[in-house]
This record gives sequence, structure tokens and C-alpha cells, in this order.
Amino acid sequence: MNSSPKNLFDSSDSNRNADELKYAQKATFNEVFHLEQGAQLAEMSIVYETYGTLNRNKNNAVLICHALTGDSHVARHDENDVAGWWDIMVGPGKSIDTDRFFVICPNVLGGCRGTTGPNSINPETGQPYGADFPTITIRDMVAAQKKLIDHLGIKKLLAVVGGSMGGNMTLQWGVDYPDHLQGAVAMATSAHVTSQALAFDVVGRNAIVRDPDFHQGQYYDEEKKPLAGLAIARMLGHITYLSLQAMMEKFDADRHQARDIISDFETKFSVGSYLAYQADRFGQRFDANSYLTLTMAIDLFELGKTPEQLTASMEKSKCRWLLVSYSSDWLFPPFQSKELVNALVAKEKPVSYCNIQSNCGHDAFLLSHELPTYGGMIQGFLANLESTEDETSTSNVEAEPVFDPTNIFHNHHRIDYDSLVELIPDGASVLDLGCDTGGLLERLRLRGHSKIMGVEWDEQAVLASIRRGFDVVQYDLNQGLASFNDRQFDCVVLSQTLQTVMDVERVLLEMLRVGKRGIVSFPNFGYHEYRRELAEQGRAPRIDAADGFHWYNTPNVRFLSISDFVSFCDEKEIQIHDRIWLDTRKGRRVEESPNRDANLAILTLSK
Amino acid sequence: MNSSPKNLFDSSDSNRNADELKYAQKATFNEVFHLEQGAQLAEMSIVYETYGTLNRNKNNAVLICHALTGDSHVARHDENDVAGWWDIMVGPGKSIDTDRFFVICPNVLGGCRGTTGPNSINPETGQPYGADFPTITIRDMVAAQKKLIDHLGIKKLLAVVGGSMGGNMTLQWGVDYPDHLQGAVAMATSAHVTSQALAFDVVGRNAIVRDPDFHQGQYYDEEKKPLAGLAIARMLGHITYLSLQAMMEKFDADRHQARDIISDFETKFSVGSYLAYQADRFGQRFDANSYLTLTMAIDLFELGKTPEQLTASMEKSKCRWLLVSYSSDWLFPPFQSKELVNALVAKEKPVSYCNIQSNCGHDAFLLSHELPTYGGMIQGFLANLESTEDETSTSNVEAEPVFDPTNIFHNHHRIDYDSLVELIPDGASVLDLGCDTGGLLERLRLRGHSKIMGVEWDEQAVLASIRRGFDVVQYDLNQGLASFNDRQFDCVVLSQTLQTVMDVERVLLEMLRVGKRGIVSFPNFGYHEYRRELAEQGRAPRIDAADGFHWYNTPNVRFLSISDFVSFCDEKEIQIHDRIWLDTRKGRRVEESPNRDANLAILTLSK
Repeated sequence: MNSSPKNLFDSSDSNRNADELKYAQKATFNEVFHLEQGAQLAEMSIVYETYGTLNRNKNNAVLICHALTGDSHVARHDENDVAGWWDIMVGPGKSIDTDRFFVICPNVLGGCRGTTGPNSINPETGQPYGADFPTITIRDMVAAQKKLIDHLGIKKLLAVVGGSMGGNMTLQWGVDYPDHLQGAVAMATSAHVTSQALAFDVVGRNAIVRDPDFHQGQYYDEEKKPLAGLAIARMLGHITYLSLQAMMEKFDADRHQARDIISDFETKFSVGSYLAYQADRFGQRFDANSYLTLTMAIDLFELGKTPEQLTASMEKSKCRWLLVSYSSDWLFPPFQSKELVNALVAKEKPVSYCNIQSNCGHDAFLLSHELPTYGGMIQGFLANLESTEDETSTSNVEAEPVFDPTNIFHNHHRIDYDSLVELIPDGASVLDLGCDTGGLLERLRLRGHSKIMGVEWDEQAVLASIRRGFDVVQYDLNQGLASFNDRQFDCVVLSQTLQTVMDVERVLLEMLRVGKRGIVSFPNFGYHEYRRELAEQGRAPRIDAADGFHWYNTPNVRFLSISDFVSFCDEKEIQIHDRIWLDTRKGRRVEESPNRDANLAILTLSK
Repeated sequence: MNSSPKNLFDSSDSNRNADELKYAQKATFNEVFHLEQGAQLAEMSIVYETYGTLNRNKNNAVLICHALTGDSHVARHDENDVAGWWDIMVGPGKSIDTDRFFVICPNVLGGCRGTTGPNSINPETGQPYGADFPTITIRDMVAAQKKLIDHLGIKKLLAVVGGSMGGNMTLQWGVDYPDHLQGAVAMATSAHVTSQALAFDVVGRNAIVRDPDFHQGQYYDEEKKPLAGLAIARMLGHITYLSLQAMMEKFDADRHQARDIISDFETKFSVGSYLAYQADRFGQRFDANSYLTLTMAIDLFELGKTPEQLTASMEKSKCRWLLVSYSSDWLFPPFQSKELVNALVAKEKPVSYCNIQSNCGHDAFLLSHELPTYGGMIQGFLANLESTEDETSTSNVEAEPVFDPTNIFHNHHRIDYDSLVELIPDGASVLDLGCDTGGLLERLRLRGHSKIMGVEWDEQAVLASIRRGFDVVQYDLNQGLASFNDRQFDCVVLSQTLQTVMDVERVLLEMLRVGKRGIVSFPNFGYHEYRRELAEQGRAPRIDAADGFHWYNTPNVRFLSISDFVSFCDEKEIQIHDRIWLDTRKGRRVEESPNRDANLAILTLSK
């Protein structure tokens, strides 16, 4: 093995621009590199870039895995440097802060940017591999990166971060090298491509191999390269990276006119000329054989065909996870991220998940529009990994946010928390359903509970609670808690949320399946003031009048008294254990006639 | 002009199979045919098939417009005939009943099935047109069909029916020949393709023209045809016709294995081999130049870039409309059908619309899975056109359906209708919001109201009310009534629906914008029995207990008394005119103390 600090590239790097290579380094591994599907490479080199400084304990390294057409140049190294593909995220003071972290971004195995790939010289023939380059897998790419990390003397990465194909690699890291990463951030990715995405790749590859200039992949010495086929594949790929909405915004207004950009390839329609122009540019920097190699690796990636197989795959993982999807991503649709989350939850791994509402499609993770949402969340996630890893660093716990868009009691002291917490045994594991921004989780953390988790549906609340360092997954309670195991938590809490869900029965039964004990709090519609409002004034009680809500705009959709709830439990064979009755208007506990004198009920339940 | 009854095709019909042509006829028009974009054809022929018998009044003709890759063989002509592409819909006793209707299905201008197209002989050169075939538009296709209809001696079609590109043609018929059709059924279509769909077409066309065997379109005399390019275009198109869900169901289980079907084109992955096999078959029956010509016509189709332009386009239409979309169609997404509906509503044209929940994607309109939904609806729509057209035929009004999944009062006599109808002046135009299966509309029809329309969200209720012959559009009331004009109706009714909508304020204000008068009915939460339930028993009132609902599963999400509603009107400056108070439990009107003694309120309002 030898390693050269700068600029020692062989002739196959012709695609690379000298400027871009200024900061790149190369590590060459001279031993045989065995591939998952049985073939081998006689030697293997990785070209990579780094940012920031590796600390003395070598525990501040963040590995970034690029996507299909990305490269090692994730960000500018200085003001004069050319732009990187993720400058919005990576740099001094940014979400992935190079003042704090040692960031490593390698070019991927099989690509065309210096790391061994089809355009590298095959040492056995002295010619570029071309079509002889073997089939590689995501696992092979990650194994190559692991060699680099070893070479850099890093025993455990603080985190691996990647989106799309980079997300596949991140997942593979978590599964293959569980002891070598503290955290994993996988964005806009999945356990396998959809059959639809796979079909697009099949079409793109056929466009390349049927280009008359493809010459069975041995075109490096030919005057003409298979650029038409590559352009068609790229145009098709490009469509799948954008959402319908984004394309409408970009192209609808002048759809029947070509854009004033130079491309002989396609000159009709705004979207046609734009895609062709981008495809032309792509052809200048990308190699068709790498396109074939990398899309095949993506298409072969399979962490588990069924939910059961996927869950089994996740068994080995030991890191803390953050999964991020984007609502308008139809190439790696959000339900695929949720399948991963479900598998991790089922294996009781620490995991957070947010599906960010975005119009930007699959590319959202690369775009600055969405940075205010996911940037802060990832920053918080990394900061909390750091504090776990290195107890000497300062705590990264954020203060309780002032604004809370979902909780109808948000401006008040949560008197119910005082009582709720009393009902939770010391050290119990707790799942908080409708955890909001993490107020109750915060109290439990301060009380020393270690296994705590939240479920929340409101995006802003999910983002805020993840920033604060909690494991929170974005699930719709009305759809149940399928991935959680029976009796997975000592306590499952549903505080002030029951009255806002449509499918009350499902939520309660799920809660009592997943928790050994359920703790539920809800406003009591039978409270004497409410009775009086209806009986004497003939007005529907305004339970959340203090928050400015009326009958016509309250988030509450279910109205129940304590007696109603007790009857329900009786009917559904739910046992009630502890009962706490509160009159929050008077700030006191109620002992007698709760259905008349309490406006809030807190009960522990089991089934 | 000459017309030949059977089988007089020129040599360009080589793609046609003799069996398929057995029932086809040909009409040749020897005069110059002028095209929308300025070019002309020296002559023009149409090959078509017919089913059933044209009646004496020539008013039972239904024209079916096929989609991009369809043809005139819409259905079998007899038991020994080969299958048609819409056998599920067209035939004796079927939804488009050939015992009743004279069905005409022409091959499209620009296609490759006998009607003039790029593979026809250009009379000026004696050679096939090839790339010299001029750019044609959807308008040209429809103009050619109009010539055929004239030739058949039909002054007015009972209906034009088509999906996808056939839907584009149906829309164009409605706009270009308003006096020549009674009804139009446009399925899975739009006023223009999305920029995404357009981009896919651009990619597909490039795959064809860059095939080395394309020879600038003059390949008819060459040994090899541009089949690789056509296959790539077809595979890509095929993906867009299927939903993600349908592809998962079809291909996920054996995704990494090729199917046992013969295609050299692509041999990897179940989806790859399947698409390649279908594309091979397609290449045997379709001409690449026609693919270019027809997709370009689709891409150029533009009924209106903006909602305003689209609305203006619809001004001329005089027919009755039925628009159908499918929830998982991402090539012609449902919102595009809704844009058409909005434009028709804005021009106060008679229109019905249903977005059918389906997993089948764009192709849903061709598949038998979905027939039980759309088949009956189209049958009902045609039957009602027929009865309007020919007063001697029997009425096609369906009886009130017994089952009603949405209305909480479905098993009861709608006592409120008696009172509601009293508040509607004779002959007034009426819009019924939440019209359910059309119960109130039926009463109004019997009373002789001619301009009546419904809005409903539940699919089954929409289907049922359209079958009964009402104009009903599927809108979500919570999203407003944007396309309706201010004061478009004398009365807008919201009966027993207010308590089920989240955005009460929006719905009421929209109702009072669109109607000169609003008529609203709702259950009164202040009713003495409900007060007693809360005050004395401490139980939340069970307003819909008779229907078996409880606090935890009622469809009601809003609870209000008459006093609450009156205060609301006061606050929002809504005037209350007539007031009817009912005690439905006692089956009588209430005159005094309505907020205590009535359980149902009916009010007329204005703003």
C-alpha cells in the first residue's frame, strides 16, 4: 500500500479538471480486492478529499458518501476553490461544521473520478477495463471506503452521511461495520430501488449499450464516445430527480419554446432543450461505463425484500440513526424510508425519522430551499452524537422552543406533566405518542431515563425534538404503531392527544400492545363548567377557548367525558390502574366526583 | 370522395394483420386536407370499424377515440374475432351497448393502421411519406374524424368517448364541433401534458431518431428498421402507463430474475425482461414514424395554458360532460382532470367528474379491475343523454339506492328534505353540497328544477348520483369551491354536512359566495336531550347514536348549538333569513325555544 498526498493520478483521470483535483488525495491498495459477486481487482485506489482536522482522539471524523453522479468535491476548500456539490451543508460553521469535524469524501469505486473504475487501467492488460470491469455492489463500495478509513487510522467514525446512492452506502456501513460508526444519516434512500426506478435504469442502460459508438464498452480509444446514449440515460435520470411540481414551475410557462441554451441534441420545448443541455454537460464529465456500473450496483442493492428480511438485516446495527425523506421524492418515495425506520424500530435501535414536506423531489437534499429544515436537524443530530462520544464536550441540549404549533396547551405550564411523570417508575423505558417538541421527553431525560423515544406527526415538532437530541419518528398515530413490538416499552404515554385523533380505538389498542402500561391524559367534557355552558347557556363547551379556538376551528375532533372513557375501557376490556384527576383551572387535584370536578384526567391502563 | 365497404387497403398497410382487417372499412377523401400548422395532405383516407346499427334518426352514434397505440379494433365483432382493446366496455349488453348504440372507431390520422400516416404513400412522390409526413395536431385528427362522421350522414353524435390521447380528441371535439355532439366522456386526460410527461416523450423520440437504423425516417426500404430506438421509447412509455403500486405488485417478488419470456433486448430483472418483451411485440405492430408523429401531436396539444385560457376555451362547448380520472395515474394526474372540470364549471357547463381510487395507474381505464366503477357510470351517463335526445325512449332514472355509506342518517326518512325543499323557490337553480347519492337532487328534479348540480366527496356516492343522471363533481368541500362563480346558483344547500367538515368557515363563506341564498341544516347540540345527557349523566351527547356511532367513531367532528351558529353568523356578518326548527325525534316543527327544543336547524343565509 502506498499513499500520496496530492495529485498523483494516472492517465485514466482525463475526465477530471485540474482545478478540481487540486485538493484531492489518493490512496492505493496494492493487495487483491475481493468483490462480493466473486470477481476481484488486482489493486484498488481511492481518490478522496478531506476538510477540517482529525482530532487527537480521532473521533470527530464524518464520512460523506456521494450520490450516483457526485464526487469527492463535496465543498469548497477555500474561497478561490470551485463550488462543491454540497457547499450548503459542509464548511466552517455550517451544519456539517468543518471547524468541528474532520470530513472525508471519497470518490466511489466504479466511478470515473480517480477511484478505481471502468476507465482505470487494468493492470493485467495495460488497457482501461471498459466492459471488463466487474460487476460491483454497494457492499464493495463500502468495503473500499473502510480500507480508506483504516488507512487514515480512524477506528470509529463519528458519523456516515449520504443521500440517494450515498444513502444506500450509509445503510450498508451501518450493517456491515456496526462497530465503526457512532451515527448514520441516510437521506432520500431505501433498502432497494422500486421496480419503477429499476425499470428507468434498465431503459437508460439500453440507451447506452445500443449507441453505435459504445463498441461493447471499449470506446476509450475511439474518436467518438457513446454520448448520445449517455445523454438519453442522463435526461431520463434527470426527470426522475425532479418532482412534477418542480418541473411545472420550471418549464410550464414557456413549454413550447426551446430555451436559449446551446444543445444540438434536442431543440424543442423548454424542458427538452434544458434537459439536453444538462445531458451534454454531463457527457463532458462522466463516463458511460461508470454509468452502467453504478446504476447496476444501485439496482442490485437489497437490504431485505420483505419487511421481515429487512428487519433481520438491521439486527447487526449498533449506531444511532437519522432517516430523512422528502414528500415529493418519487424515485425513493418516503414509504421506503419508513420501511427502514420500521425495521430499525422493530429491532429497538435508536432511530429518528422525518419526512420533509418539499416540492423539490429527490434532489431536495441537495437544494438550499430545504436547508432550513434538514440542515438544523442534522446539525443537532451530529452534535448529540458528539456529546455521547466525548463526555468532555459541552452539552448540546437545546432550550425548550417557545413556539409550538400543534399543542393546544402550548402557552401554558403543562401541569399535567407533573402528575404524568409521577406515574412513570424510575428508569422505565418510555414511548411518548404525540411527543410534540419533546417537553415530556426532556423531563424524563433530566430524571435519568435512558430509553426514551417519541412519535410525532407535525413536521416542525419532529424537527425540533430531533434537534434537541431525542429519538423521534414521524408516524401518523391513526395508522397504528405496526413496527413497534408487543410490550416494547414499560410505559407508552398519550398526553392531550386522544381528543385530536379520528381513530381513537386503534390508537388506544396499539398503545396498550406496545406498552406494558399506557398512560393517557385527556380533557374531560363532563367538567361542571362545560356542563353549565351547555345546560344553561345552550352553547357547545369551549374546551380550548384559552387558546383562541372555537367550535368551528378547534383541532379537537373527539369529545368525551371521564365516564365515557371508563365505559369505553370496560367495553374493550381495558384495565384502569392509577387515576389522577386535575382541575387545571384551579391548579389542584380532585379527589371526589371527578367527572364533574376535574377538567383533565390522567389514567394508567393495560390490556 | 369514394368509399369502399371492405378491405381496400394500399401497400402501406403492411403492419396490419389480415384477420384484424376483416371488419375494417375505408373512406377516402380525395380533396386537399388542410392541417392546422399550415401544411396539407393531397388526399386523406380513414380506416374505421363500426359496431351495431345506426338508427333511423341517426342519433344513436357513439364515436370512440383510441389512445396513442390503440386502433380501430375496439372490440370483437363476433365470437371468432380477435380481441379488441376495449372488449370490457364495448359490445352487446355492455356499458357501451352495441345493441343500442352505433359505435364508430376510426384509426387516427398519423397512425400506422390504414388511416393516412407516415407509412402511407405520398401521392406526390409515390413513396411512403416517412419523415416528410407533416406535423399534425389533435385538432387535425378530430377534423379528419368529422369528415368521416359527415360521410356517414350523422349530423350529431350521441357521444364522443376517449381516454388518454383519445381523451384529448374528445375534448377537442367538444370545443371544435359543439353542435355535433350531445355528450362527451373524457377519461385519464388533460388540457395539456405535464412538463414531466412531455420530457418523457422527448427522451423517447430521441431514442428513435438516434437509432442508426432510423435513416432520417426513410427506413421503409431498408432491411433493418429502427426497432431498438422504438423499443426504448416503448419501454419508457410503458413505465409511465403503470403506477408504482402496480409495478411493485407485478415485479417486486422476482425482481432480480429475468422472466421466462423471449427477448434478446434486455435479459436482466423481471421488470426488464417483461418490458423488453412487450416492446419487441410493439415493434412488430407499430411504426416508429407514427410514434414520433403522434407523441408530437400529444405534446403540442394545448387547450389553455392558464386556468383563464382554459376556461375561455370551454366557452364554445355545448355538450354534457363526464370527466374521469384515476387516483394513481401520474402521467395524466387527477389534478389535470380537475382543471378541466373547474373550467367547465366556471363556464356553467353541465359536467360530472369522478376521480376513481385505483392502483392501476394511467392504464386503469383499459382494465377490467376498474370496470365496476366506471363502467356503470358511463352506461348511466350515456343512457341519460339518450333520454334527453330522444323523448320517446324510456326514462333511465335509477331508483334511490338503498345503501348509502356516507350519510349518517341513511336509514331514515329525510324529514329535513321536506322542509328544505319548501325553502327553495320554484324553478330556482340549486347546488347541493355534499349531495350524497342525489336524494335531494331527485326531489328537485321531480319538482321540475332544470339547473341542478351536486358536489360530493365520497366516490361511491358520486358514482351513484352520476348513474342516476345528475351532474355531480367530486370536490373536497374543505378546499373551497374556487371554480364556481359568484352568485352562480339561486340556492346552495349544505344539508347535514356542516358538522363533518373541518374548515367550517371556508365552506360557509364559499357557499354564500356561490349562492344568492345558502340553505344549511345541522344537528343542534343544544337540544334538551343532549343537555340532559351531559348535565345529568355526565356523558357526551350521542347525536348519531341511532346509526350506531359513539364519541370515538362518529364521522362528526364539529359540535355546535343553534346559538353557537347564530353567534357565528353575527360575527362573520352573515344574514339569516328563514329559520325552520325541527324535532325529528317527535317528527314535528318547533316554534318556541329552538335551541332547547329542536334537534335539527334549517336556515337560509346570505352575505
